[in-house]
Amino acid sequence: MKLLTEQASADNIARILEKLDTFNSDPSRGTTRVLFTPVEIAGRNYIKEEMAALGLTVREDAIGNIFAALPGTDPSLAPVWTGSHIDTVLQAGMYDGMAGVVAGLEAVRLIRAAGITPKRTIEVVVYTSEEPTRFGLNCLGSRALAGALTLEDAERLKDEEGRTLAEVLADLGYDLARFKDIPIARGAVHGAIELHIEQGAVLESLGLPIGLVKTISAPTNFEVSVRGKQSHAGSTPMHLRHDAFLACCEIALELERLAKASTSPDTVGTVGKVEVVPNASNVISGLVQFSIDIRDSDYETKSKLVAGLQTFFREVEARRKVELDIRQINDDKPTHSDPAILGLLEEACIKKDIPYHKMVSGAFHDSMMVGRFAPIAMIFVPSKDGISHNPDEFTEYGDIAKGTDILVETLLRMTME
Amino acid sequence: MKLLTEQASADNIARILEKLDTFNSDPSRGTTRVLFTPVEIAGRNYIKEEMAALGLTVREDAIGNIFAALPGTDPSLAPVWTGSHIDTVLQAGMYDGMAGVVAGLEAVRLIRAAGITPKRTIEVVVYTSEEPTRFGLNCLGSRALAGALTLEDAERLKDEEGRTLAEVLADLGYDLARFKDIPIARGAVHGAIELHIEQGAVLESLGLPIGLVKTISAPTNFEVSVRGKQSHAGSTPMHLRHDAFLACCEIALELERLAKASTSPDTVGTVGKVEVVPNASNVISGLVQFSIDIRDSDYETKSKLVAGLQTFFREVEARRKVELDIRQINDDKPTHSDPAILGLLEEACIKKDIPYHKMVSGAFHDSMMVGRFAPIAMIFVPSKDGISHNPDEFTEYGDIAKGTDILVETLLRMTME
Repeated sequence: MKLLTEQASADNIARILEKLDTFNSDPSRGTTRVLFTPVEIAGRNYIKEEMAALGLTVREDAIGNIFAALPGTDPSLAPVWTGSHIDTVLQAGMYDGMAGVVAGLEAVRLIRAAGITPKRTIEVVVYTSEEPTRFGLNCLGSRALAGALTLEDAERLKDEEGRTLAEVLADLGYDLARFKDIPIARGAVHGAIELHIEQGAVLESLGLPIGLVKTISAPTNFEVSVRGKQSHAGSTPMHLRHDAFLACCEIALELERLAKASTSPDTVGTVGKVEVVPNASNVISGLVQFSIDIRDSDYETKSKLVAGLQTFFREVEARRKVELDIRQINDDKPTHSDPAILGLLEEACIKKDIPYHKMVSGAFHDSMMVGRFAPIAMIFVPSKDGISHNPDEFTEYGDIAKGTDILVETLLRMTME
Repeated sequence: MKLLTEQASADNIARILEKLDTFNSDPSRGTTRVLFTPVEIAGRNYIKEEMAALGLTVREDAIGNIFAALPGTDPSLAPVWTGSHIDTVLQAGMYDGMAGVVAGLEAVRLIRAAGITPKRTIEVVVYTSEEPTRFGLNCLGSRALAGALTLEDAERLKDEEGRTLAEVLADLGYDLARFKDIPIARGAVHGAIELHIEQGAVLESLGLPIGLVKTISAPTNFEVSVRGKQSHAGSTPMHLRHDAFLACCEIALELERLAKASTSPDTVGTVGKVEVVPNASNVISGLVQFSIDIRDSDYETKSKLVAGLQTFFREVEARRKVELDIRQINDDKPTHSDPAILGLLEEACIKKDIPYHKMVSGAFHDSMMVGRFAPIAMIFVPSKDGISHNPDEFTEYGDIAKGTDILVETLLRMTME
């Protein structure tokens, strides 16, 4: 096979990431680019322009996953994928997801610059809405690719304005009749690699530039609504209260206790979103709605934590005489990387003399869903102070370039088979 | 003295309360009438029309307290006041405050119907913003009358849009140069009686129509801001978190524990308002702002609770490595009713053969502030199920009428001296 003639360019990676970052609905604090808002649509269009400039063939499926193909010499072979997402949480950073999309673009640029035409087609993929920011469910695009998000689901998922995902897609011109064509059959993709920032502090603490992900922790998410009795904060004696917020507090602290007590080192639990009604200083809250997010690399310890939490739900309900309404949104299983791809990634690191660390991903990623129908692996690059989902999120462009060198090397090996 | 010729009319009380209730910015759920919003201004105008229809002389001070005078025969004597407020919390009921204003109007109607001209002037007062809904501080109008809210305070108090009370007043045409004239000198008001719904379940549980308030519990309010570390809910291990929301949860539960453990039966503590930032299911909160409301009929036990809570603040701060910013908004002292007025109220109940109960008010009222410069007392009427600050708040019009009969009898006795 022909050899690559260049290394990945930190400058080119910076150029695209910084331009992409201008599509931001809340520039006062970090980056906010929520699914199908005007800035997110503009961000998609910009990435499609970059794809077209590389001579790639761009298409979208009915949920807005973007595929940019560098055609291989043998179209009968299953393609190799690489990519990530470009949507964000509120007031986020500019690397989470975006780094993997830009690494994919840079990998293709390097392949083209070397005049290489791979045997298998390589596709750079932008998965729709990895973050649950708008519809409360994560990995919308990759979930649909895995056949785990149907048109019925899209008709049920609602944003805060009460609009369904299906409505939003239809309004933007996506053809819902093609929704059934989204899922990818097992075997139809040869393998998929996602580069992503670590979003934790392991690589930084080890002083290593590259992480190779063995397992992606998977989330279980709940939306909980507590109904108590709204009443006057002055004239309601303590023993006559049914304070919805205090029930929420107990649950949040019990979740922390259970996660800390877990036998798996990768168990985490978070209450990140809380709405108190009526939310006035002198009124005992009658209604509180909050999110529960549980992750683990081990499905069994996660299930055990969930069972413990459910026992506690009943206890709080009985003791405080409040009503809990618990909606389970998802209960995903951890995904293991494909040993063969992981082996190729290790070989690439050794060949390029780049030190690496094999690790668990605490954050979920689109690869978790892609892993349901294709062999996957992930490359991590370091996050400063482990901070992510925060304006202070930071990764060196040089580290993304190093990860891209590993990526492109491995993509080429995969396209030779 | 001439005798009253009529009893208070439940129908007339109903008419005014129901008309006043049409000034509501959120009719989908209860009553919402927040200080100086269009509906609150319309409600003020309606009450002033009712005052004018009774032939009263209406004036307002520089913070919008409304005074409607029935002139007495001896203008050299200090007047007698009766009144309450017409602003509400969010999604409130239609009786809290309003019942006392309408009882005052009905009392004056009865006096005029009987052709009585009292010796002292009687003034029906509507105090500005008893509820802290808009500016986070309660009893704005009565606090200013007591000299405890200055123009400087009004220039500092901000609503959620960042507008100061002084700006809002100036925009509405109130003359800030007259702000210094608001405070009432001790001795300038002969006495003040406020009729109010109980907002608790004591009278209902005793099956009694009238409560005579001996002591008004007083609040201590804090605004607390917890600064933790915003980070990713998946990739941040439990032991590396500085979750601002969990610190808030611990404080809310400790407040409950301290209030329940208090030696005073009237101690209550509430966290009613909570804002989580960034408030996303997959982000550990980096900032939480919340309210603390503590009330007690005993200033010493309240101070002891506050001291206990402050110790806990330091403990949580150290243990969770979060930063607490604690702003004390007020630290009011309980107010005791004037024994002489209380005696007149008891005599009126006995004369009219209406059974009553002497009690503590858990809720604060404008009378708490008025008590700083004048002798005060309060009449309570029952609240169904003890519910208040809630659309289900309910008081029988007949009970308000019974309370009005006690009120008018006592006002006339007070104006004879």
